[in-house]
Amino acid sequence: MFGNIGNRDFYPKWNETPPTSGTYRSIFKWGAPDQFKHPNRRLFQMIKETFAMTDADFKNRMKEGNEPVKCAVPVKLSSDQIAVFKNIAGESNVSTDDYQRVRYSNGKTMEEAMLLRNQLVGNVADVVVHPRTIEDIHAIVLYCNDQKIPLYVYGGGSSVNFGVQCTKGGVTLVMQTHMNKVIELNETNHTITVEAGMMGPDYEAALNEAVQRFNTKHSYTGGHFPQSFEYSSVGGWISTWGSGQQSSYYGDACDLVMSQEYVTPQGTFKTLDYPATATGPKLNDIMKGSEGAFGVLVRVTMKIFRYLPQNRNRFAFIFPDWSSAVNATREISQGQFGMPSVLRISDAEETDVALKLYGIEGSVLDQAIKLKGFKPHERCLCIGHTEGEGYFSRNVKKKVRLICNENSGMFLTGLPVKNWEHGRYKDPYLREDLNDYGIMIDTLEAGVTWDNIHNLHQGVRSFVKKRPKTICMTHASHFYPQGTNLYFIFIARMSDINEYKDFQKGMIDNIAKFGGSLSHHHGVGKMIAPWMEEHLGTQQMDVLRALKHHFDPNGIMNPGGTMGLDLSPDMRRYLK
Amino acid sequence: MFGNIGNRDFYPKWNETPPTSGTYRSIFKWGAPDQFKHPNRRLFQMIKETFAMTDADFKNRMKEGNEPVKCAVPVKLSSDQIAVFKNIAGESNVSTDDYQRVRYSNGKTMEEAMLLRNQLVGNVADVVVHPRTIEDIHAIVLYCNDQKIPLYVYGGGSSVNFGVQCTKGGVTLVMQTHMNKVIELNETNHTITVEAGMMGPDYEAALNEAVQRFNTKHSYTGGHFPQSFEYSSVGGWISTWGSGQQSSYYGDACDLVMSQEYVTPQGTFKTLDYPATATGPKLNDIMKGSEGAFGVLVRVTMKIFRYLPQNRNRFAFIFPDWSSAVNATREISQGQFGMPSVLRISDAEETDVALKLYGIEGSVLDQAIKLKGFKPHERCLCIGHTEGEGYFSRNVKKKVRLICNENSGMFLTGLPVKNWEHGRYKDPYLREDLNDYGIMIDTLEAGVTWDNIHNLHQGVRSFVKKRPKTICMTHASHFYPQGTNLYFIFIARMSDINEYKDFQKGMIDNIAKFGGSLSHHHGVGKMIAPWMEEHLGTQQMDVLRALKHHFDPNGIMNPGGTMGLDLSPDMRRYLK
Repeated sequence: MFGNIGNRDFYPKWNETPPTSGTYRSIFKWGAPDQFKHPNRRLFQMIKETFAMTDADFKNRMKEGNEPVKCAVPVKLSSDQIAVFKNIAGESNVSTDDYQRVRYSNGKTMEEAMLLRNQLVGNVADVVVHPRTIEDIHAIVLYCNDQKIPLYVYGGGSSVNFGVQCTKGGVTLVMQTHMNKVIELNETNHTITVEAGMMGPDYEAALNEAVQRFNTKHSYTGGHFPQSFEYSSVGGWISTWGSGQQSSYYGDACDLVMSQEYVTPQGTFKTLDYPATATGPKLNDIMKGSEGAFGVLVRVTMKIFRYLPQNRNRFAFIFPDWSSAVNATREISQGQFGMPSVLRISDAEETDVALKLYGIEGSVLDQAIKLKGFKPHERCLCIGHTEGEGYFSRNVKKKVRLICNENSGMFLTGLPVKNWEHGRYKDPYLREDLNDYGIMIDTLEAGVTWDNIHNLHQGVRSFVKKRPKTICMTHASHFYPQGTNLYFIFIARMSDINEYKDFQKGMIDNIAKFGGSLSHHHGVGKMIAPWMEEHLGTQQMDVLRALKHHFDPNGIMNPGGTMGLDLSPDMRRYLK
Repeated sequence: MFGNIGNRDFYPKWNETPPTSGTYRSIFKWGAPDQFKHPNRRLFQMIKETFAMTDADFKNRMKEGNEPVKCAVPVKLSSDQIAVFKNIAGESNVSTDDYQRVRYSNGKTMEEAMLLRNQLVGNVADVVVHPRTIEDIHAIVLYCNDQKIPLYVYGGGSSVNFGVQCTKGGVTLVMQTHMNKVIELNETNHTITVEAGMMGPDYEAALNEAVQRFNTKHSYTGGHFPQSFEYSSVGGWISTWGSGQQSSYYGDACDLVMSQEYVTPQGTFKTLDYPATATGPKLNDIMKGSEGAFGVLVRVTMKIFRYLPQNRNRFAFIFPDWSSAVNATREISQGQFGMPSVLRISDAEETDVALKLYGIEGSVLDQAIKLKGFKPHERCLCIGHTEGEGYFSRNVKKKVRLICNENSGMFLTGLPVKNWEHGRYKDPYLREDLNDYGIMIDTLEAGVTWDNIHNLHQGVRSFVKKRPKTICMTHASHFYPQGTNLYFIFIARMSDINEYKDFQKGMIDNIAKFGGSLSHHHGVGKMIAPWMEEHLGTQQMDVLRALKHHFDPNGIMNPGGTMGLDLSPDMRRYLK
């Protein structure tokens, strides 16, 4: 598939050693310890050329964080307080050891990875608790509220915006350890009730294997497949308003929620299980995306779908330019024939990389693309697949093909999307390899209406490209009749964390300036928080603060800036 | 179509005189003054038999409310205060005359109609204001808040739960008079921005005629067609969480909202226009269904759809029983091939009436139904149509037919649904005719999950049927993978308003008792309010009250029990 890869022999010795447990690297490395995805030779070549790096630059790896974790931050809670937590959740479920404190206070931002490589730990919990039951959590929330102890929640830990940083110390609740069970699969209602700490693969497996495990008539799917699928929890999906790679068909995580159960300092409640109801503003909506700032999400009832993998139809197209790709996907999204399950268009810069990543470059398809005159740096890739009932799925693909043809797209078979599917959860593994050689990679994303997509795309790109030797790849991957998202990936050789932070701030400034939403599916966390006041306006922020104050009058729930709710005015970011 | 209607010659002289303007009847009569829909002869016969009424009972009409409206309730606002409103909105847009005060303080509940027939007026506004602009409304809200003057909003006036009753006097804002314009149709985004007082037919006409009126490439539809379509406003649809007869395909009113602009005592804001965003709980959600209790909805941006009436495919089926009809519609809703636009199943009792109403009884179809052994009092009618892109729409119909066949349904051609479409907005006209002869008719509706539909249906029916000579018809008409709604219609000969009120309370008690939501698409208003505390639970009601307190600390917005927000504990309804 990869064809002739040329005569360039040098290829770095990428790290393939699973990190030793207990090390910094074991915390910041994405995914399974023993799994890796290295830049392939074509991508490596491109990186070297773009950044004007030599083979010598890839001889020695940077600090790799292979040291055992040490945490110099003293535990601020008293031994009496810790004893209370042990009494509630059981001795073995409460820990103050360095490793647990650091591990469960870090997510997967670039910045956290860089700090951990340098053995820098800051915003850690005093105590890590692995609650067993809702009753445990209820008792913990009550006690923390009484004692004014900050309380954080750790789901899968895949946050890319400091969602799990324990900026004020205190306690963090690790949900995945025990709170990970199926409570009920209701086949009549097409719903499943699970504990919030259940991880993506377990959730999906329970549904796929429902016939064997729950004696159902059919097997099911949850329809939620974010790139972090393997390392994120059902509760995390909802708390951060996540969106999976198949959201154009299945909906985002919050669309999939039937009801939720929360433990808050103000009390415990479960929202009502109705397919629809007109009894005023719905708690089920008010709680969505609240990122642990109102309370602890303990259980959720999710909508499920018949599992029909046999009905998947794949497609890929190459368009002469970004405009054609945008127009085609807009027409698809507004076509009233149902939506593809995966739909994704890459801009010209990402397309050049994608052709390398998805095994197109050097293949027969590549020859066809060249033959037909689709030019590098202009042409744009579109991949996707359709799902659902058989005829429905086939009709969606047929219409997609028709619309893409009308917009000068050339059909590329289903192969590129098959390759994409194969590696769909693996791309984040690339980061550690790049970081090992001083190359930073990060992503920011925004929701955008159709009439503003080019303005936002150009605005953010022109900021990024002002910096020499910087890659800026963009795709849209979640589609709606009213718009889509733009997902910006930048890659740059940077060793200074402050340069990186300034650059990231500049990107967010420009997303805001050019009218994107501050996040499409990553949530807000403590990273985007400084932009929230200007983005929503004080009137709307005041409403969120009123809710925060109601649920959490003592400010113990995920404090330290989450969603900008307890951010002091001087911490806010205003556009320059 | 109606076939042989038998030899029963007597048919009442239904009222066909348009009410004189200025009379009570001109207020409570549904719809256009000069339009009527009388019970046809078959229905009349059935009513007479069910209620054991004689021809003599239909000789003289009850109090018809033909008197000119008088309002003895004194205006409590001072002339200075009234002068302020005139100064803000213009002399001609402020009225304290009896007719306006009564007209714009009444909705369309059975109880309001009965009171008005008897020349009883109670909860009226002191002053009626017809604001011209957002600035007018802003100034009015500020002034009312400052002076603690109760402030109500009147959209289309079709509320069936005392949504527009001015229980504390004060001011009511009539939105339909001036706040009824299109601000922008954005064809790229498939959205339209309108003032909140725009009425259904104007809204739909603007979209259908978009090519001529806004120079668009295509014509559009709003997809929202409640039975009250002709007499409800866009703002009212959202404020009450309305749902149209085609919601199974297009979504409910709140699904269709892109963004909203509010004027509240706490300030003015517009929610953000994004197709999706992950920036915490969304104001756009928090405000939906808030029934004027948080602020005045002044503008909305709605999602729109290509207008493709040529792709409509109609169907109707008769099932041997309710269970089969429920099973079929559940399979359709969970089938992942898209949804029909209209889908509706009637229980056995409603089916017997529907066959009369939609012109089936006595026709060739009726003969086929009898021939195939579908029994009266058991058989259940299903009607619907599909929309969207051509192949999509055809495939949905094909799958519907397949599933209905598998569930013992017999195809009845598209004729019954054509007849239904013809009269879809006309049924409410029947009420005045029945009322004229002392027969009450009213509706209550609930959201329900599939696994509880029979329990709820039987529970409410058995309550209603305990009362002798009472008709209880039920249908489901809004479908979701997780459930549907049940819409209960009861018809009874009752002349005492208190008997009626007790009976209605009993029905709501039983909806709550058997696990229905308190409303599927009628909203809460001041009628359902007493049940809210128990339905949602105090924890969740406290959240709504916290929001209320934030937006409206002086409690001036739609006060007097709306959604139960300012209801004293002794006013709450607890199940016996």
